[in-house]
Amino acid sequence: MKPVGVELRRIAMPLVSPFRTSFGTQTTRDILLVRIETADGEGYGECVTMTDPVYSPEYTDGAIDVLRRFLVPALLGPPELDPRAVAPALVAFKGHRMAKAALETAVLDAWLRARALSFGEWLGATADRVPAGVSVGIMDSVPELLDAVEGYLADGYLRIKLKIEPGWDVEPVRAVRERFGDDVLLQVDANTAYTVADAQHLARLDEFGLLLIEQPLDEEDIRGHAQLARLVRTPICLDESIVSARAAADAIALGACSIVNIKPGRVGGYLEARRIHDVCAAHGVPVWCGGMLESGLGRAANVALAALPGFTLPGDTSASGRYYMTDITEPFVLQDGHLLVPQGPGIGVSPVPERLAEVTVSTEWIGR
Amino acid sequence: MKPVGVELRRIAMPLVSPFRTSFGTQTTRDILLVRIETADGEGYGECVTMTDPVYSPEYTDGAIDVLRRFLVPALLGPPELDPRAVAPALVAFKGHRMAKAALETAVLDAWLRARALSFGEWLGATADRVPAGVSVGIMDSVPELLDAVEGYLADGYLRIKLKIEPGWDVEPVRAVRERFGDDVLLQVDANTAYTVADAQHLARLDEFGLLLIEQPLDEEDIRGHAQLARLVRTPICLDESIVSARAAADAIALGACSIVNIKPGRVGGYLEARRIHDVCAAHGVPVWCGGMLESGLGRAANVALAALPGFTLPGDTSASGRYYMTDITEPFVLQDGHLLVPQGPGIGVSPVPERLAEVTVSTEWIGR
Amino acid sequence: MKPVGVELRRIAMPLVSPFRTSFGTQTTRDILLVRIETADGEGYGECVTMTDPVYSPEYTDGAIDVLRRFLVPALLGPPELDPRAVAPALVAFKGHRMAKAALETAVLDAWLRARALSFGEWLGATADRVPAGVSVGIMDSVPELLDAVEGYLADGYLRIKLKIEPGWDVEPVRAVRERFGDDVLLQVDANTAYTVADAQHLARLDEFGLLLIEQPLDEEDIRGHAQLARLVRTPICLDESIVSARAAADAIALGACSIVNIKPGRVGGYLEARRIHDVCAAHGVPVWCGGMLESGLGRAANVALAALPGFTLPGDTSASGRYYMTDITEPFVLQDGHLLVPQGPGIGVSPVPERLAEVTVSTEWIGR
Amino acid sequence: MKPVGVELRRIAMPLVSPFRTSFGTQTTRDILLVRIETADGEGYGECVTMTDPVYSPEYTDGAIDVLRRFLVPALLGPPELDPRAVAPALVAFKGHRMAKAALETAVLDAWLRARALSFGEWLGATADRVPAGVSVGIMDSVPELLDAVEGYLADGYLRIKLKIEPGWDVEPVRAVRERFGDDVLLQVDANTAYTVADAQHLARLDEFGLLLIEQPLDEEDIRGHAQLARLVRTPICLDESIVSARAAADAIALGACSIVNIKPGRVGGYLEARRIHDVCAAHGVPVWCGGMLESGLGRAANVALAALPGFTLPGDTSASGRYYMTDITEPFVLQDGHLLVPQGPGIGVSPVPERLAEVTVSTEWIGR
Repeated sequence: MKPVGVELRRIAMPLVSPFRTSFGTQTTRDILLVRIETADGEGYGECVTMTDPVYSPEYTDGAIDVLRRFLVPALLGPPELDPRAVAPALVAFKGHRMAKAALETAVLDAWLRARALSFGEWLGATADRVPAGVSVGIMDSVPELLDAVEGYLADGYLRIKLKIEPGWDVEPVRAVRERFGDDVLLQVDANTAYTVADAQHLARLDEFGLLLIEQPLDEEDIRGHAQLARLVRTPICLDESIVSARAAADAIALGACSIVNIKPGRVGGYLEARRIHDVCAAHGVPVWCGGMLESGLGRAANVALAALPGFTLPGDTSASGRYYMTDITEPFVLQDGHLLVPQGPGIGVSPVPERLAEVTVSTEWIGR
Repeated sequence: MKPVGVELRRIAMPLVSPFRTSFGTQTTRDILLVRIETADGEGYGECVTMTDPVYSPEYTDGAIDVLRRFLVPALLGPPELDPRAVAPALVAFKGHRMAKAALETAVLDAWLRARALSFGEWLGATADRVPAGVSVGIMDSVPELLDAVEGYLADGYLRIKLKIEPGWDVEPVRAVRERFGDDVLLQVDANTAYTVADAQHLARLDEFGLLLIEQPLDEEDIRGHAQLARLVRTPICLDESIVSARAAADAIALGACSIVNIKPGRVGGYLEARRIHDVCAAHGVPVWCGGMLESGLGRAANVALAALPGFTLPGDTSASGRYYMTDITEPFVLQDGHLLVPQGPGIGVSPVPERLAEVTVSTEWIGR
Repeated sequence: MKPVGVELRRIAMPLVSPFRTSFGTQTTRDILLVRIETADGEGYGECVTMTDPVYSPEYTDGAIDVLRRFLVPALLGPPELDPRAVAPALVAFKGHRMAKAALETAVLDAWLRARALSFGEWLGATADRVPAGVSVGIMDSVPELLDAVEGYLADGYLRIKLKIEPGWDVEPVRAVRERFGDDVLLQVDANTAYTVADAQHLARLDEFGLLLIEQPLDEEDIRGHAQLARLVRTPICLDESIVSARAAADAIALGACSIVNIKPGRVGGYLEARRIHDVCAAHGVPVWCGGMLESGLGRAANVALAALPGFTLPGDTSASGRYYMTDITEPFVLQDGHLLVPQGPGIGVSPVPERLAEVTVSTEWIGR
Repeated sequence: MKPVGVELRRIAMPLVSPFRTSFGTQTTRDILLVRIETADGEGYGECVTMTDPVYSPEYTDGAIDVLRRFLVPALLGPPELDPRAVAPALVAFKGHRMAKAALETAVLDAWLRARALSFGEWLGATADRVPAGVSVGIMDSVPELLDAVEGYLADGYLRIKLKIEPGWDVEPVRAVRERFGDDVLLQVDANTAYTVADAQHLARLDEFGLLLIEQPLDEEDIRGHAQLARLVRTPICLDESIVSARAAADAIALGACSIVNIKPGRVGGYLEARRIHDVCAAHGVPVWCGGMLESGLGRAANVALAALPGFTLPGDTSASGRYYMTDITEPFVLQDGHLLVPQGPGIGVSPVPERLAEVTVSTEWIGR
């Protein structure tokens, strides 16, 4: 597959409502799309960076810079493109997994399209639909939260995740349990907002039968998570900390987590995501697929990944309408609480040109 | 891919010389070939069982029986064949991984051929050739052994593995080191012939700078291997014990091995073999590809697997001529101590009809 | 004791009612009887394989094949038969413990009969009767289950075991507790139907004061059981996982179980069963005797084993009438909730010729 | 201390000779200088990024971008500058420790100058001079290496560090030992070029009495270093892996290192560097001060840090002339194998305006 060049396209997609986590509040999703052009067709990858380096050291402008200066030139150097060769070609550059993931995904998409294979077939999906969970941001009040949760349950979402932070944790969880009962699959996400010193406070969540508490401590604090896991009964799930299959193996070996949230964008791409899935499965650790407010392009690939057999918990693979009034692809819609795994070649969806044009902020072309 | 039926073909291939391990001596290799016929073409899988249940509980007649009674009917039931669905379709049947592997490999071969994809592309091979090691059986005398090793080194083999058993261990290793020097990559394979009580004796091998000692203890004795690993400096490699990605994860977690020999036939197929590779890589455990005296059909797939990046040690992927005067495929030959990874669709090689007819002992057809 | 030959007899015994576990439903019990003929008399062993390889890799046809091809010839080779020499004579053949157990039991039975010693005397039984528990299959409805349990309690069974699977666990247990109170000795058997990810769900059983939960996870997942044992309060009992005294020692050392179900057929025979008993006793781990829907022949030997002092929990050693309208031996009947330990030579019971003839499907003779 | 603005100045300093490590070869040092202007005077910080993201995810252009977009604005927001408040003000931004360090150092320099306190006084230096080691890059040949080492020993350097990589390790070390004897303080630096699978090879260095082997494995592979530490006798020192005091505590707790190389630029600044020093001292782990080819500005601060009492091993704090014909400050020169700790206010040295102008490539001003 001969490479022709790479287009970096920045789009701005208005959110249906502001999304607040312990990192801050977003009202528009600033997305970088990477499109590779080859002699055999094109492929898309979506970069999951946020505008600011608050979830990880990467941010959108930084990703564009490192792609432009280092990653794309290293990839376009050799005469042939092959998805297996992307990570090895970029390994000399430390970090920047989100930028690398976008690039690898674009190559994989193009390569699979040229072979009429779907992401699901390639990755080893064994389901044709995946259960959809929803992530509920921090609200101004408990009644507002209960209204939001009620709406999502009415939509058919099969699992509710509440974003928490100190001051917004036990009470909202208790309120949701009291209002909606013990049978709702419920979990919380702390986005690193606590410390080990909060163990006793977090143990107050134990009585609510949560599926898991996600990333309570700093992403670098693996040992602290292991300590916390001995102090709370709610299973610890890691997100930000799991940047690679090795990080997963280490965290499991150290007893730092019993569940893993896999975000392909965070770990350098879908090949590494599958490796994490395999490592976790071998250790009996359930995984689920997180989300970074992806457009339909990123969502499609995530849904294919979430159809692998180790994804035994519902993911944050929500319908497009959870975040966007209009998506840049045909929207993903809930069917009986599930999303269908795309079956077409590559990621299985394509941007709608007019819609893409509408949200485009800038484009940049890097030729061979 | 619509299944039509499965052919079980038993062939008998004379060995160029008797091969003796701690399990016994073989002079002919009794091989079961599984061929699946589909509407889109055929595919081959080679079953690695031996004639007797001495390496594992499986043996060739037993594999034929379980394939005929349970596995093939379960696979041919659904209207569509897909390599991802083989293992799930057979999971209700405990054990019988060698039989399952042959069947899954045949499906995968047919499926990839229909898509013009090679095993290497599908599995994620990142090399186009793999270094070849050779396994040297137990000999009647040390001079005979030295002659054999000399021959293999002259052939270009890049790593020597000596089969050992009590009474044939320290002396042959010492003799090979003295004659061929410290730079020869050298390892030993005990095929479960020792017990933990032999630890002090096995520690006498430490001075010879061996790459590893393979499967010194009983395959079920994981805890014993962990104990042994604390008593000898030579790295412990597991073979028979590693029947799945979970077994690999467990053995690593328990400190029972620091190197793994992956035999796809032993672990249920190439998909599980890749999972073991990924688990080991995540834990920093090097792997290499073992062999079961495969014909060219099985060898081709093994060579593709051995081209994955975690295979950092030379495998037992020898040239066809190591075992067979005439192979049933175009023979694999050493080129500068390496074997080339087949690039054609599926496993990339096909049996030569006349040669196959010559060695065939029996065939059986199982239609849908 | 000079061997003459071995008869393999297959019988089909109709069950009084279908027996459903997480593996499937049985309506007839397909049993292989191994009878050895010697110059000094005959002996019987019952093979516990099921028709399909769903409980273990072994199945009845496979057991017949491995006995015919490998085990019986290896045993009949030497001129003298001795029960202590059976396992060593067969050790080169990996696995196939059920087939080996049947053969060893037949030899032991003949050898003890020739010496007028009972199984109980030989094994070290210290009781003359054993408390009887009963295993209750999965039912179509809770009322149906309650009726069945009520009947068994009326029969005098001293302990109830419920087969469970996802979807049939907390509710039936709760119903039985609510109807029959907290004093009924109650335990559950999952037959590997769960994963570690179900830990929180299984912990919901904690409130019911169960004696144990049996084999919740895959038989190869020892580490997972250890993990589960830290997350649920109900004691974990292993069944399928315990294939040898070493496996028992390993599982105990790893914290994977605090109770063991010993099935002599599963572990290679009564000599190994006694060794497991000894290892568990040394570690303070209670054991009990499981069942595989044995006829009177197998049941007799199990009852003798269950009379050893470490069997401190009631076993699945039910009356013959639990499973069979007519047994092939004099039936075992409940006396005050107990079964009497046979006191005659060998296993202490013999088949009734006419009854045996009635249920015989086929016989095969393997002479010396 | 009222902030006025920040100047980012990029300079290019030609090296006296090319410096080759396992990451690549440098001939010019591309340095970013951060100068803060306040109402009370100015301060300098030197950013240790390299041009490409090969030592860490950070690189010079990336550091400039993140400083311009996020770090400087966050710092200049509040009306008062205080060195203790820099890290808290930037904590919401993940990673980017090199950029943060440069900024914090500039603030600290300005703040100390305004108070006429030296870095050494502020940090707790207890020596007035520090022993100087030298880092010797990978050479084309062993004779060339021996010439270089001879020169450095003649200059008076008290400790030699050889950069190594696979293919350039045992032989150069042996050659240096044979030529210069066992009394030379000698250590090696692998810059992440090995894997755990190289343990046996690295153990061949054990016989040479090295002070330490620095960062043999990937910076994220803490568990692998712990494993390696059990397989080689040469003490393991971590560099890239130690990004914070917590990372140091974790690595020590896991047995991954017994010595730490502290580079203030890598860990976010001199305050965190002192905390690492304190943690290591508390654990009995010796530390030394690494280098990133600093100009005199960065070197001055490093020398002050290296005068703390836990720095019991000679650092890479070489004379200016080791790297640069002309430095941008008064050069640091060797005196009896030592460098003198600057005693003036702040870092104690200032750039020579003409020299600075000569090497300046660009400047950018970010006002409040």
